[in-house]
Amino acid sequence: MSQPLVRNAREIARWDAQADVVIAGFGAAGATAAIEARAAGADVIVVERAGAGGGSAANSGGVIYLGGGTPTQKACGFEDTPEEMFKYLMAACGPSPDEGLVSAYCDGSLEHYAWLVDRGIRFRPRFAAAELGADECPGLVYSGTENAWPFNEIARPAPRGHYSADQGLASGGVLMQTLTQAAMKAGAAVHANTRCLALVVESDGRICGVVVRAAGEQSAVRARGGVILTTGGFISNREMLARHAPWLLPCTNVVGIEGDDGGGLMMGQAAGGVLCRMDAADISLPIYPPLQLRKGILINRHGQRFINEDAYMGRLGEFALLHQQGRVFLVVDDAIFARPEYLEADIAAVGETIAELEADLPLPSGALQATLSFYNEHAAKGRDPLFRKKAEYLAPLAQPPLAALDLSVDVVPYGVLTLGGLQIDTAGAVLDRDGDPIPGLYAAGRTTSGVCKGGYSSGLSIGDSTFFGRRAGRSAAARAIREREARPG
Amino acid sequence: MSQPLVRNAREIARWDAQADVVIAGFGAAGATAAIEARAAGADVIVVERAGAGGGSAANSGGVIYLGGGTPTQKACGFEDTPEEMFKYLMAACGPSPDEGLVSAYCDGSLEHYAWLVDRGIRFRPRFAAAELGADECPGLVYSGTENAWPFNEIARPAPRGHYSADQGLASGGVLMQTLTQAAMKAGAAVHANTRCLALVVESDGRICGVVVRAAGEQSAVRARGGVILTTGGFISNREMLARHAPWLLPCTNVVGIEGDDGGGLMMGQAAGGVLCRMDAADISLPIYPPLQLRKGILINRHGQRFINEDAYMGRLGEFALLHQQGRVFLVVDDAIFARPEYLEADIAAVGETIAELEADLPLPSGALQATLSFYNEHAAKGRDPLFRKKAEYLAPLAQPPLAALDLSVDVVPYGVLTLGGLQIDTAGAVLDRDGDPIPGLYAAGRTTSGVCKGGYSSGLSIGDSTFFGRRAGRSAAARAIREREARPG
Repeated sequence: MSQPLVRNAREIARWDAQADVVIAGFGAAGATAAIEARAAGADVIVVERAGAGGGSAANSGGVIYLGGGTPTQKACGFEDTPEEMFKYLMAACGPSPDEGLVSAYCDGSLEHYAWLVDRGIRFRPRFAAAELGADECPGLVYSGTENAWPFNEIARPAPRGHYSADQGLASGGVLMQTLTQAAMKAGAAVHANTRCLALVVESDGRICGVVVRAAGEQSAVRARGGVILTTGGFISNREMLARHAPWLLPCTNVVGIEGDDGGGLMMGQAAGGVLCRMDAADISLPIYPPLQLRKGILINRHGQRFINEDAYMGRLGEFALLHQQGRVFLVVDDAIFARPEYLEADIAAVGETIAELEADLPLPSGALQATLSFYNEHAAKGRDPLFRKKAEYLAPLAQPPLAALDLSVDVVPYGVLTLGGLQIDTAGAVLDRDGDPIPGLYAAGRTTSGVCKGGYSSGLSIGDSTFFGRRAGRSAAARAIREREARPG
Repeated sequence: MSQPLVRNAREIARWDAQADVVIAGFGAAGATAAIEARAAGADVIVVERAGAGGGSAANSGGVIYLGGGTPTQKACGFEDTPEEMFKYLMAACGPSPDEGLVSAYCDGSLEHYAWLVDRGIRFRPRFAAAELGADECPGLVYSGTENAWPFNEIARPAPRGHYSADQGLASGGVLMQTLTQAAMKAGAAVHANTRCLALVVESDGRICGVVVRAAGEQSAVRARGGVILTTGGFISNREMLARHAPWLLPCTNVVGIEGDDGGGLMMGQAAGGVLCRMDAADISLPIYPPLQLRKGILINRHGQRFINEDAYMGRLGEFALLHQQGRVFLVVDDAIFARPEYLEADIAAVGETIAELEADLPLPSGALQATLSFYNEHAAKGRDPLFRKKAEYLAPLAQPPLAALDLSVDVVPYGVLTLGGLQIDTAGAVLDRDGDPIPGLYAAGRTTSGVCKGGYSSGLSIGDSTFFGRRAGRSAAARAIREREARPG
């Protein structure tokens, strides 16, 4: 039988340690929760299974999705409002996004930016037209499909991907060093190499602690105010992927760390929390940089286009994998030929004419010719009637030789990150199946189905981890203080 | 706080009733479980929340997916083997189908056919080329995409949809009358208007009973061998749909009954069972009968075809809703004009020429003209290079006037049935997160993620409900008898 994920308080013979707030996981959500809980006057214990904090955010590019008119946006000459940010996220994070979380996130974004700056995070006021991935530090970028169809018709485009340091793609490490040090400096007691095994529950359903294991020994830690689950998602748990999202299994670029094994989700669920959209994922197919590759066309195995190639890499990947079974080619001509910087893409075929190219590909005869004939005719006039790619990326693909790069999921590394998790409210409390908070249980980050419930833009994961991590920390601290004050004498 | 779905045995002051096997739900899975448990020598209590048994199967067309060379298949002149059936189902029920369940289902199909006949179910040896839905009783039909691309290249096509009586589309009612009466005649004690509220668990994790409510009064029923959850899926629970599969919410043809509220899934999960593929559903868009409509073309909002129109209605619906956001048209010419028998489809536009038709539709200019020009050119030669529709459904769409029927999800009723549920083994035992059976807990039918884990063909739901319902009944009975014999004299 499985080890229990929830233990009854009466089974706990003795509390080996106690604190107002106990946090499982010391990544972006855990560190911010610890900082805020300490700031609210709570004492805090953090348990982290790895040897040091940082979590998957430390391994990431460190981009944070912020908007509504941040100083960085203004310095780069972009207007933005919480309302436009809300419109974009409600469209990009659906279907059926969590309106309450999205709304809180947008309304609080300027304050969150300022808070991060106060903690020592620096944002560079330089706009980079190339999305994520230039060698030098990008600064501020479009990190979703804000500036391309269909979202550019839904909300006024603004770049909201804020790189958090001058370190380029190492920003995640710098960010997490800053946040974990701030948490420790604030007085959070961090226990590394300590794994959270189970939640402890009172007979009335309140969560009152955790059972942890360190160096082979189990111990019980009492949480007077609450337990916050911030242990990441489940991208590294292949059984859970097979059960909830088997199409992710062939994707080889796992965006996460070994600890993203779903443990926090399962503990939260065992305590009565509900899981949301366990099928959802960020699925990333970075066909650029270089940006010129947006002038190519992505085709499916029927030789049809299926998306505007200037969409965000997370939208390209989602459409390619979920709607086209991960069987797609990028067709380019000699004028734009390049290999995508992040993909070891094979050249599947080369031809002096479209017919020659097509003959060498596993495509229905005539299909690519029909597709390119239609595309080129309109591209010459700067139009893309099918998918409304922007004029700057439209030019007939006509300069021989033509080539097709194989971007199929079994050939190139699609990046994947799970988005499914526990449902929380705007205070960071874990909700039960009736939508009621479970007393004493909080969560944030990829342990939850957060702002990015049903869709993704880069920076949303660290964005909602830090935003709702802070809220969970404050909520758990406030509960501890209320309990303390309610105690007689 | 939510009412508990699992209760500790020590909280049960008194057992109001007891039996070897307790079954929650008296539909296709529950009735067959009861019959087999009785046949194995167990005494059986069935609790059913509705006023009478039948479940959603009683409201259905009653088709059962059977194969491997059944007498009905043979009488109609079709060859089939368990191996070909297995090849089809492994392709059609994925990605990542449950190989163990599919294999058991195919290997046992002939025996299951004979068992159903022995219980009084009659199958009519008449092959009907039109799939599901002719007015007269169809008999034997292709009830999936066995005979169309791509599955006709994966497995030798054979029709496996067996209508279970001479009653045409009322077959489900006749089927369930037969099965529920057989269960009662066999001695199962059926308690109608009795709702299962919670499972009762021993301190060592064994499931030993249920708490039920009838006429406002709660009582506890002890299960010596096991509890079998057969309470249906969750298509009628809109909160669960919003959480797991929000794209189903706009679909107005709910294939199920009010009782399909997910209660059994939630109880099983609360007892440690794992849920699988909660996003999965049968999504049905019946563009035919009449069959001539297969000669039309389905197009998306970009004016492109996206599927062979002779595919199974469940595949048409899945592709239309999941890959095309439920925004599709059926384009026909005057030679084949008709309205789909099951859809109140609006005529969105009519035109003497393709250009005229296109101009009246919300489509990119020129797109439909390009699509039809390519389609007609090849259809005239009996070929469909893109999607390999069969030659018998290929003819240029050229006889004016042309028309487009709006088959968008907000216009016509897509049929939907949830497929996600508890993971079971081939004995019908509910599995925990480590893949181990939970002692004393069984399930079958849409409470489980069964044979149709990730894809559907008509008849699979009643098929796997009855097949694994039987197995769960035998397993729970055997456990009761083992426990009885182990008890000291």
